[in-house]
Amino acid sequence: MALAIAESERVRGTTSPNPPVGCVVLDEHGRPVGFGGTQPPGGPHAEVMALKEAGTRARGGTAVVTLEPCSHFGRTPPCTEALIEAGVKHVIHAVSDPNPDAGGGAAQLERAGITVTSGLLADQVGNGPLRAWLHFARTGRPHVTWKYAASLDGRIAAQDGTSQWISSETSRKEVHAMRAKLDAIIVGTNTVKKDDPALTARDDDGMPLPRQPLPVVMGMSDLPDGARLRHTALHLRTHDPDEVLSALAARGVVDVLLEGGSTVAGAFLRAGRIDRVLAYIAPAILGDGPAAILGAGVSTITDAVRLTVQDVTMSGPDLRISAVPQT
Amino acid sequence: MALAIAESERVRGTTSPNPPVGCVVLDEHGRPVGFGGTQPPGGPHAEVMALKEAGTRARGGTAVVTLEPCSHFGRTPPCTEALIEAGVKHVIHAVSDPNPDAGGGAAQLERAGITVTSGLLADQVGNGPLRAWLHFARTGRPHVTWKYAASLDGRIAAQDGTSQWISSETSRKEVHAMRAKLDAIIVGTNTVKKDDPALTARDDDGMPLPRQPLPVVMGMSDLPDGARLRHTALHLRTHDPDEVLSALAARGVVDVLLEGGSTVAGAFLRAGRIDRVLAYIAPAILGDGPAAILGAGVSTITDAVRLTVQDVTMSGPDLRISAVPQT
Repeated sequence: MALAIAESERVRGTTSPNPPVGCVVLDEHGRPVGFGGTQPPGGPHAEVMALKEAGTRARGGTAVVTLEPCSHFGRTPPCTEALIEAGVKHVIHAVSDPNPDAGGGAAQLERAGITVTSGLLADQVGNGPLRAWLHFARTGRPHVTWKYAASLDGRIAAQDGTSQWISSETSRKEVHAMRAKLDAIIVGTNTVKKDDPALTARDDDGMPLPRQPLPVVMGMSDLPDGARLRHTALHLRTHDPDEVLSALAARGVVDVLLEGGSTVAGAFLRAGRIDRVLAYIAPAILGDGPAAILGAGVSTITDAVRLTVQDVTMSGPDLRISAVPQT
Repeated sequence: MALAIAESERVRGTTSPNPPVGCVVLDEHGRPVGFGGTQPPGGPHAEVMALKEAGTRARGGTAVVTLEPCSHFGRTPPCTEALIEAGVKHVIHAVSDPNPDAGGGAAQLERAGITVTSGLLADQVGNGPLRAWLHFARTGRPHVTWKYAASLDGRIAAQDGTSQWISSETSRKEVHAMRAKLDAIIVGTNTVKKDDPALTARDDDGMPLPRQPLPVVMGMSDLPDGARLRHTALHLRTHDPDEVLSALAARGVVDVLLEGGSTVAGAFLRAGRIDRVLAYIAPAILGDGPAAILGAGVSTITDAVRLTVQDVTMSGPDLRISAVPQT
């Protein structure tokens, strides 16, 4: 399953609105003989890719897949049929399909005499490569990760507004790599006026990566002439996070990064539309300067939006904290 | 040495202005036969305690000690003499004594034919149980740990001022245990007016621990009638951190905890008088409310006070981050 997860991570950001699934096919002796990840929309799913590589060696073998194989005709034939035809004896999947159209794959495989094991590393997959898609499948809304970089005392800039660079080069490179795995990045019009960001995903040499997320600007103001996002971004003239998310869902956007500023972050938190917080905390004290989030609608301590820390790692000298709202 | 460090931790908070030293005596076969920590001022030092327990088994053995043994007569006879008299053949210490009066212990032991090994786990001891005392020995100023509890977005209270409790019960218990190992706790007059703290160290049942730090209030205002600190605290009528630290040094205070509020923290940071930052970060978002530190004198990003993260641990659901200013 660890190999299947690696396959899914490899295609993450290229499959929306389909899930980034990974699959490994083992031959009858348990040796991995085929690897596959979901191809861009319209292309083959992970199981089909892995079975293709495995060829006849799949017969009597096992398919390990991060998501329950689909059993419906979409733009591609159902994966369950491909598995049955290939003569696989055992299918192990992590997460069950929450989608009523695609679901029932396990039952269909079992009817064909295939042993099905479900739930292996389901948490790791469900909170990892499939988290955004599962959220989208359940709610119809894109999954929103709010990312910010701040000092240890929670400031995103110094008193004079300067903020380049609070976080380390390592963290900034990590964010660029992450952008390439996402469908869209949202900022507010204030951020465009203040920082003139390009919101592109670039490699370590500053060159654009092959896959770029959709840049989205929300807010009523016009973008300044000459702003880098003026001709590339989708400008949504609203302050309502739900209107933004609906517009993005309609475009097949599943996984969204919210990059700022603090008023936009506050609006999303107030609306209950932050599904993950990713904080890069630089080991520095500013002692004055603007905060990462404003106007979140919390007036007293008992109303604080409580999170559960999922992961803390070092990103160069910075702390990288991933946390999700408690349900 | 790990055993010697454990001995030093056991006496931490009871030895100021002397260092909390730990010592383990091994017999000639390398078996630990004596353990000791520095006793309160006027009492025996760690080496003497450990030698006493070891008795004649120290002959031909090894003394492992966190600090170079002292060679001068203070309130107690020099430890070097005790080690020589006991017939120890080998002395291993972590940190060399920075104090010119007490230093020279290693040379004196070597002149008596004892092998001396220096520097074993010196970093661990120097940044751990002896950090505050070494700072005091080098600068003449007490070592200041600024401790605060904040939400992930850096707020120490909600918009309405409520702050009980941002951090978890686990973190609050940890702070009480830490207070018992410190010499003094500083707060500002505003914190007294707002929170009416007792600044006592209490056990898990809320009962006072045997050792209590000196409560210190700094600021010009009178403490309110009925404030819990009114009759217990040392009230220093100044806003100058250096005046506070001088007054405390004169009382033999070596290790200080700065607990707030944000203006006092800002004054200490501005004066360069924060030697360690201990942040309890609760996984919660407040989105409005006061910051942990104000007026730190940083006006632009390049003047940020950069820290090095020493340690990140979980304290219940909270993150506990220990960081020290870069030199």
